Amino acid sequence: MIIEASVPLKLTLFGEHAVVYGKPAIAATISEFLKVKVTKSDRFTVVSPSLNLKGVKVNLDDMKVENEQVSRLLNYVSESIKAVGNEPVKVEIESPVEPSVGLGTSAAVIVGTIAAYSTFLGNQLTKEEIAMKSHEVELKVQGIGSRMDTYVESLGGIILFNGNKEERLESKLSFVSGYFKRSMTTAEMLRKVKEFKEKNNNLFSRIIDSIGDLVMEAKEYMVNNDEDGIGRLMYVNHGLLFSMGVTVPEVDEVISRARNVGIKGAKISGGGAGGSVIMTPDPPSAFLLRSFGAYVINASFSEGGVTIKRIR
Amino acid sequence: MIIEASVPLKLTLFGEHAVVYGKPAIAATISEFLKVKVTKSDRFTVVSPSLNLKGVKVNLDDMKVENEQVSRLLNYVSESIKAVGNEPVKVEIESPVEPSVGLGTSAAVIVGTIAAYSTFLGNQLTKEEIAMKSHEVELKVQGIGSRMDTYVESLGGIILFNGNKEERLESKLSFVSGYFKRSMTTAEMLRKVKEFKEKNNNLFSRIIDSIGDLVMEAKEYMVNNDEDGIGRLMYVNHGLLFSMGVTVPEVDEVISRARNVGIKGAKISGGGAGGSVIMTPDPPSAFLLRSFGAYVINASFSEGGVTIKRIR
Repeated sequence: MIIEASVPLKLTLFGEHAVVYGKPAIAATISEFLKVKVTKSDRFTVVSPSLNLKGVKVNLDDMKVENEQVSRLLNYVSESIKAVGNEPVKVEIESPVEPSVGLGTSAAVIVGTIAAYSTFLGNQLTKEEIAMKSHEVELKVQGIGSRMDTYVESLGGIILFNGNKEERLESKLSFVSGYFKRSMTTAEMLRKVKEFKEKNNNLFSRIIDSIGDLVMEAKEYMVNNDEDGIGRLMYVNHGLLFSMGVTVPEVDEVISRARNVGIKGAKISGGGAGGSVIMTPDPPSAFLLRSFGAYVINASFSEGGVTIKRIR
Repeated sequence: MIIEASVPLKLTLFGEHAVVYGKPAIAATISEFLKVKVTKSDRFTVVSPSLNLKGVKVNLDDMKVENEQVSRLLNYVSESIKAVGNEPVKVEIESPVEPSVGLGTSAAVIVGTIAAYSTFLGNQLTKEEIAMKSHEVELKVQGIGSRMDTYVESLGGIILFNGNKEERLESKLSFVSGYFKRSMTTAEMLRKVKEFKEKNNNLFSRIIDSIGDLVMEAKEYMVNNDEDGIGRLMYVNHGLLFSMGVTVPEVDEVISRARNVGIKGAKISGGGAGGSVIMTPDPPSAFLLRSFGAYVINASFSEGGVTIKRIR
């Protein structure tokens, strides 16, 4: 029996970083999918030809890993497996994008493994159950982390996260997105932001409060399909993220140039230090991103979250 | 009799734009001086070989002007003259920098004209009186405008403006500065900021409140000669100005690159849309500014404000 889970990747539209400090954020699933295939095997094995540049083939029993990235991937998979059962399987992971570019590939690995493996064991979970279990695994591996990525990738759609509540948003707006190589990991960025908070706590609070307000205004623009308003707030949010120290020159330049040539909105999406950028879908947006070396992805929103099918 | 006033130009260190909405700001005079020479004449004449690219020579009696920039200069001079007396003189203006790059040349023309012309008429004013009269003239010509530029250029030094109060700061810190061509005038920038305020008033308030806090923290770092702290706040302030929409790609890029190469702090100084940039005085700062096409100026602080001497 082979079970395959297809997990939509996600974009953070507004509120990244501030969400770590309890502020609201909006995330949405897009039309790029990470696939996790679970096959019967006599040993636990993880294979991912696309997630890592070199390709990964590791035996979970002796846990030999090539590098930190592989080790992280293995942790996600093995903890996801442990959370569901203990029958040995081969887990194959295929990602349409590089890991750690702000598109939620780590969360997708967890969501996909839990969804596919539980189905493999004959215990089909609801999407809410997948979301909950996935977040538990993420917390176990990372220590911290908002439930945003695992939740939105499990259930799909455009979702406002506000405290412990989720609100599903309907919007006709769309975005163009591309990603850049990152110069730091999300964990390093989170540390950098925390340092700023420790050094200038009052100012830091002011800035994340501003982002909190901005997200709630963005929600209104989203549901009212107000592209001008959304675009305006994208630049404002980017400036606030610049203030928090999570942006890099190439990305600041492409976003500032976008504004200069009249693109309605542009900002980083996700952890920063390179990574993903989103823009309103003005005609030159994708061109501008490519001209700066970004890999443009299919950012049209997707509904439905994780899907599971039996291949054989 | 020839009287010459020498007026130090100024940098806004923190709080530009927010100061227009009642928030505090810090400005300082630098070692670049605009000179205004007043000579006895049978008609009112204004000559400025350096302030305008083409050179200006206009007879105030028939008020023939070549372009908007000249017209603005003439308004400053003629209103300054009117505020002091009515004996005809020739006014010569020599500026070390281009006008409208955020260094306070307009204010310096007013301060210099009032200082030199009043002395010429035998009515030497105190620096406070020069500051007050100059601000009145500025308001008359521009409609709005904070008293920051005219005040700091009249009295000199590093000054915190907070509501109606001024506080003189002592600091051993210094900055490197250069300026870029501007793509919009300060008036246009002010309008753009006002539009943002009208569209997203709550968010706008949050952002300028953040700047207000930041300025008061910057004051502490200034007087404690804490370059790391000042540098950190410079980037934060720049991000907030990015959010307000007053930055342009070249400048965003040079500032983001400065951060990337480890320069402690960098931000725009003044109205934005190009104009002046300040950086902490790390060795590569001036090089980086020049490599982006900026004109580097002598930004070392100057004391004493406007000085007046009789040449003949």
